[in-house]
Amino acid sequence: MTGPAEAPLPAGAGLAGGVGGPDTLEPLLAVVLSALRDGAVRRDGPLPAGGPAAVAEGLAGLLAPQSLLPDTGDPQALRLLTEALAATAADPADPYCAAHLHVPPLAVAAAADLAASALNASLDSWDQAPGSTSVELAVLRVLAGLVGFARPEAAVGVLTSGGTESNLMGLLLARDSAAKDSGAAARLTVHCSTAAHFSLARAASILGLGADAVVPVDTDPDGRMDPRLLDWGLADTRAAGRTPVCVVATAGTTDLGAIDPLPVIGAVARRHGVRLHVDAAYGGGALFSRRLAPLLAGLGEADTIGLDLHKLGWQPIAAGVLLARDAALLAPLEQRVAYLNPEDDEGAGYTSLLGRSLRTTRRADAFKIAVTLRTLGRDGLGALVDRCHDLARAAAERIDAEPALELTAAPVLSTVLFRYLPARADPDRVNAALRRRLLADGTAVVGRTVLGEGPGSVRLKLTLLNPHTTTADLDRLLARVRSAGAEMEAEAEAENEAEAAQEDQESNS
Amino acid sequence: MTGPAEAPLPAGAGLAGGVGGPDTLEPLLAVVLSALRDGAVRRDGPLPAGGPAAVAEGLAGLLAPQSLLPDTGDPQALRLLTEALAATAADPADPYCAAHLHVPPLAVAAAADLAASALNASLDSWDQAPGSTSVELAVLRVLAGLVGFARPEAAVGVLTSGGTESNLMGLLLARDSAAKDSGAAARLTVHCSTAAHFSLARAASILGLGADAVVPVDTDPDGRMDPRLLDWGLADTRAAGRTPVCVVATAGTTDLGAIDPLPVIGAVARRHGVRLHVDAAYGGGALFSRRLAPLLAGLGEADTIGLDLHKLGWQPIAAGVLLARDAALLAPLEQRVAYLNPEDDEGAGYTSLLGRSLRTTRRADAFKIAVTLRTLGRDGLGALVDRCHDLARAAAERIDAEPALELTAAPVLSTVLFRYLPARADPDRVNAALRRRLLADGTAVVGRTVLGEGPGSVRLKLTLLNPHTTTADLDRLLARVRSAGAEMEAEAEAENEAEAAQEDQESNS
Repeated sequence: MTGPAEAPLPAGAGLAGGVGGPDTLEPLLAVVLSALRDGAVRRDGPLPAGGPAAVAEGLAGLLAPQSLLPDTGDPQALRLLTEALAATAADPADPYCAAHLHVPPLAVAAAADLAASALNASLDSWDQAPGSTSVELAVLRVLAGLVGFARPEAAVGVLTSGGTESNLMGLLLARDSAAKDSGAAARLTVHCSTAAHFSLARAASILGLGADAVVPVDTDPDGRMDPRLLDWGLADTRAAGRTPVCVVATAGTTDLGAIDPLPVIGAVARRHGVRLHVDAAYGGGALFSRRLAPLLAGLGEADTIGLDLHKLGWQPIAAGVLLARDAALLAPLEQRVAYLNPEDDEGAGYTSLLGRSLRTTRRADAFKIAVTLRTLGRDGLGALVDRCHDLARAAAERIDAEPALELTAAPVLSTVLFRYLPARADPDRVNAALRRRLLADGTAVVGRTVLGEGPGSVRLKLTLLNPHTTTADLDRLLARVRSAGAEMEAEAEAENEAEAAQEDQESNS
Repeated sequence: MTGPAEAPLPAGAGLAGGVGGPDTLEPLLAVVLSALRDGAVRRDGPLPAGGPAAVAEGLAGLLAPQSLLPDTGDPQALRLLTEALAATAADPADPYCAAHLHVPPLAVAAAADLAASALNASLDSWDQAPGSTSVELAVLRVLAGLVGFARPEAAVGVLTSGGTESNLMGLLLARDSAAKDSGAAARLTVHCSTAAHFSLARAASILGLGADAVVPVDTDPDGRMDPRLLDWGLADTRAAGRTPVCVVATAGTTDLGAIDPLPVIGAVARRHGVRLHVDAAYGGGALFSRRLAPLLAGLGEADTIGLDLHKLGWQPIAAGVLLARDAALLAPLEQRVAYLNPEDDEGAGYTSLLGRSLRTTRRADAFKIAVTLRTLGRDGLGALVDRCHDLARAAAERIDAEPALELTAAPVLSTVLFRYLPARADPDRVNAALRRRLLADGTAVVGRTVLGEGPGSVRLKLTLLNPHTTTADLDRLLARVRSAGAEMEAEAEAENEAEAAQEDQESNS
């Protein structure tokens, strides 16, 4: 019997799994750790200095096509590329990297995720993921209890790539509960606040709902959906011959961290017979905190809920979750595929999670969550949430006390909106420019957004998700913002004066 | 100025990133490696013995709600859960785990993925992913060259969660190039072979295309789309007042590994003015092999292409890729979001990849691919592909030589379809049962599918993706299949005899 000539495999072909995997991984992990150290030292701050051009240029040699895919392999690749990646990262573990819902992951979660990589379970069939299937179900069970569903034992869910996918699924399930044909889909509507995440409009477009399917509901001055306006909007929509299929409440808007009044919204949705999806991608993590959990009262009334443990949960990306109050709600996703979940195999107990996800191949993202939940416990995770909330309040207090800065609102969760107040120059221009200056200097990553529309709407944002950040760090970070602001203000004024002088000259000539 | 009481953080709160991250990770990684070793030894084979009930029961204590989320954390969680995960894995690094397109990941890729976890870049804005943005663009550039686009410099792409998402995106882009309103979407059609992946029908349903939007095209006896039937199907569809928007060719079907005749299909699609998407999730990796790359001739004529480097590419999940011939094809995905990619920031060079993906938060999956490409080089990756192809041919030869087994077809890539031939018992029942027996024994993970319909359609499948597997392993694996087959055949015959005896008795009484 002939067979492949069993010639030696190429260098670098060692596997992460099996009994021998750990021995193969060990020296490679040492290379990664050492390269991460060297890269972080080389970066020397929250992000590399020099802005996009400098970063791209610095990497150009390493990333040129012939370097990236040479004919013959390069055993130094792991060291070279890892050091380069660390040297060019915006590292959320640095206290001055505080722009986005972009967390510094817990080491224990990153270590657990290595196990998921090495074993490479895929959740689309039991025979690719025996234990991982149980782990995912157990994590979902715990989270279903945490959100306060009335009958957590009836709930189901699935891991997602994040709030965007969870929102897509929430809307898909609502759509398919209402309409089987796409003609009818054009008349369906989804109701959410004007501060809801942009992924809802995107989801509606993916799902082929009409261009005006998303009906925005105005917010109160704190950025929370006005339930009375929701009520009227639902009635008006129906009166106009369209069919509301979903109300989406937000528990933690991206900018203000505002939490829609869930109990009242739930009551309005129920009265109108419309499904309630809650986008708790950001705010859901507050459930770990005994201090903040009450803000989410009413969450358990939702039909479907999205949570992101890669936000307040400190997981490496991705760790999104969709929960459904009842298994029947996920029915539209059911799939029967001969090579993955034949009926007689499922009958024999070989459970497949294929029919819960929009994906087929799917990484065991639940594993790192499981390890984190048990390592820290609810009190430990709650302490991290509380620390970030404390940091946000401390930052707000400092901003409020500083005449050159204007606080937009008291923080709800862990974001703080504010702006630098120039004496004469255009504040929007100065704030946008000061943020870019900090990025280009490599000294801080501060967020930026708009609140409302038109002139004066640009805001800076701190998203404080690093529990190791200290108040001294906040003082230094805000001092940098102020000094960059003063610098940009001076530049803007100098430009204005130069323009004015030029105009004078032109009008005099 | 008050601030958070800087009390010590809870145990387990150490971060993976920053200058100190590697020191925090180091002991945790040692725990993971040791637990992976212990778990693999405890598992003692490709998967745990005992089937789903035994696996669930073995994990029940560890995964009970109070164990998984106790009030107080447990520093042993990482070790306990990792060992349990390894002990209950279906580990593709074991030569007897050969069912699915479920690869044993390369250690170098898993190690690189740890760096992605630790730094936690998110690709939705430059200021969360400075270097990672460059890495993703570079990986896409190399792959655009590899697939043979005529103008690779004009091509763009994005990392995806896998073929399912790539197919969804291919169809979404085609839909949005044709119809802006959902009324029109109901008349759009997508044409693919009957052997194309089920995710296409799912994508059509997500996108709100009509229930009969996917028009199947019959295959030749080798499982490849018949381009003449495609041609007629496109013409008939238009004649019926509907609008074909996309032809989807498959380069590597899940079961047979069949590659549709891309050059002819491309010509037919062009003649009809219909977009061509190629699902090369499985077959795309053959491009690394100088021997097999010619099978993919014509791939570069596609408008969009899906590749999965977590298949022939040996990446930990996920490593999907969508490539588009021209940047303009991705225009429907554009997004302008105040907090992520304001126009003046993009103008200043702060590139955001937000507008290329269906996701918002997105892990730096390109990094592990970059490290793998450079570590192995094209020749190294090609050697791994060739080895798997050799293994498939060797398995086919052995099956063909064995009277108790029936080979379905000569392998194209690395899958082998076959079945056990019982003398009298129902072959479908015996083959399904023998596979479950191997799973329950914990001795082998063999795939199962159906070819055609009705009685006699059940097939077993080997998907040979472990380049470390030897021909001696194949011999042992096939011997196990034969002995499980004989056992199941005997059981089925005994049951049949018992039933016959009972019937006799009943008819005699």
